[in-house]
Amino acid sequence: MANNLTSFGSRTVCQIGLVVRDVEKSARAYAALLGVDVPACVLTDPEEKSHIRYRGRPTQGRAKIAIFQLDNLSLEFFEPVGGPSAWQEFLQTQGEGAHHIAFPVQGLDEQIAVLEAKGLPLLQRGDFTGGRYAYIDSTSQLGVVLELLEIQPAPGDKSPG
Amino acid sequence: MANNLTSFGSRTVCQIGLVVRDVEKSARAYAALLGVDVPACVLTDPEEKSHIRYRGRPTQGRAKIAIFQLDNLSLEFFEPVGGPSAWQEFLQTQGEGAHHIAFPVQGLDEQIAVLEAKGLPLLQRGDFTGGRYAYIDSTSQLGVVLELLEIQPAPGDKSPG
Repeated sequence: MANNLTSFGSRTVCQIGLVVRDVEKSARAYAALLGVDVPACVLTDPEEKSHIRYRGRPTQGRAKIAIFQLDNLSLEFFEPVGGPSAWQEFLQTQGEGAHHIAFPVQGLDEQIAVLEAKGLPLLQRGDFTGGRYAYIDSTSQLGVVLELLEIQPAPGDKSPG
Repeated sequence: MANNLTSFGSRTVCQIGLVVRDVEKSARAYAALLGVDVPACVLTDPEEKSHIRYRGRPTQGRAKIAIFQLDNLSLEFFEPVGGPSAWQEFLQTQGEGAHHIAFPVQGLDEQIAVLEAKGLPLLQRGDFTGGRYAYIDSTSQLGVVLELLEIQPAPGDKSPG
């Protein structure tokens, strides 16, 4: 029977991620299309802070990122730098293009396990200030990488206990 | 200065379109992930009805489509059949993957002209019951095909004049 939720608890796409060769160039082109200012391009944290794991191993791979917040989702551009990563793999095998679609989740580890049990293995994961993410190796089944995105509550949002 | 709208008047992504080799297979896999029933797979109208133009020419190219309506957009899978099309071109050059992101517009012809003036040419266009669409050849600039999607008011919505 149909229900209203994915197996990982969400039916909202909160981000589309595109891998590109030159994030500044893409950010300028997209800003011109949107009629907005060019956003700052920022580098993902180093492995020591992000705890990135690509196909199960630590890596020096990072990305330069530009983010456009649209009305119903964010459009994010990733330029791979520094070493192996899901972004670099995509650019080398597919060229530039839409790499992932993200769904918000709670309980990232549990949701990764749910998808692994469905034959959808983990491709890459990492932490960032304010949250953490997992890319699922779902291209052969779904035509695109799924991202599970867990935003952590700000410290002030935590109950004191 | 920044404003709140794209040059074509929208900041909402209403559809993500994926090109796949076997739409029934993709629909089954995605339905299992979502926990919903497998949707019907439908064929786009023939050229006589859709008035499809791919790179400026009529074509017998069509697509078998499956649609998943999520909370904030639709996720649509396209299997190219029948002849040349933007979908077939993508499958042949890129393989399976996310092909386009769609923005709702009003006044399709005018919006196509706006983008052409920005160096973003038309790739494909066509009509369907209830609306019409245009794919913009924006991959080299934006990393993805843009779709402009114009939904026409139902007959009952028209003013009698």
